[in-house]
Amino acid sequence: MPDATSQPRSRAQRITDTLAMLQSPARDAWVASASSDDDGAAHPYLIPLSLVWWDERILLALPAASRTARSIAATSTTRLALGHTRDVVLVDAVAEQTVPVADAPADLAEGYADQADWDPRSDPEGYVYLVLRPLRIQAWREVDEMPGRTVMRDGAWVT
Amino acid sequence: MPDATSQPRSRAQRITDTLAMLQSPARDAWVASASSDDDGAAHPYLIPLSLVWWDERILLALPAASRTARSIAATSTTRLALGHTRDVVLVDAVAEQTVPVADAPADLAEGYADQADWDPRSDPEGYVYLVLRPLRIQAWREVDEMPGRTVMRDGAWVT
Repeated sequence: MPDATSQPRSRAQRITDTLAMLQSPARDAWVASASSDDDGAAHPYLIPLSLVWWDERILLALPAASRTARSIAATSTTRLALGHTRDVVLVDAVAEQTVPVADAPADLAEGYADQADWDPRSDPEGYVYLVLRPLRIQAWREVDEMPGRTVMRDGAWVT
Repeated sequence: MPDATSQPRSRAQRITDTLAMLQSPARDAWVASASSDDDGAAHPYLIPLSLVWWDERILLALPAASRTARSIAATSTTRLALGHTRDVVLVDAVAEQTVPVADAPADLAEGYADQADWDPRSDPEGYVYLVLRPLRIQAWREVDEMPGRTVMRDGAWVT
């Protein structure tokens, strides 16, 4: 519960806080993806992964053969949660590129290693970077912050 | 990173810790669900919700019209994460029942209110309890705990 003196954050403050969270070292996110059967039945999936904010994009590094990588490649969409359930940042993103770690441009790979607490180049076999472009970001702490929670819409910060 | 003296927890300890997390007051979970288009394209969704452990089941309370409630009703499946990304409890569950809050048996509604920090009966219109049966639960902290992370399989604790 918010304490009696707390006020909902302004949208500008939420954008500042969201960027700070996206850029913080050794940051993990919950990454949700979905797949569908041949008969069209949808299946949810969810795992924690290191998240890096680089060049206005989100980078993930994971095995190309993993369920999450395959689902995001197939559907082009993912939804990610950062923070905890009472200091939420939720991101809807589209997959822009899949880059094998062994073939990645140096600036991308350096960007990943600089923020994450590991470097997939140390054992790149089978690993890829997913480059995700955020389309919508929502940020809230408690119920009083539900209004105004959309801080990015259609890929643009809401100012 | 685990400190040099840490040891992977035993499976028995992980089950104890998992139950403690499931039963803790005012517990939230990240709830992933999936829906599919008419053309079979799958879409992931993810929101935080209060979670209650009751009678070997997980209870959620949410608007029947919400995307999460509709997706879980349609697919019968959800995947939930508790804890944080370096003390993970991941649950694959199936929907067993959807119970309108206004019609819920007293023991279920009391069970929800006892553990959660709110009571949907205070404004029940349009709200339902989802009764979820866990099929698989995984629990790990760091990479050294990836082996042995499955603590429930096919609905039974792995002992």
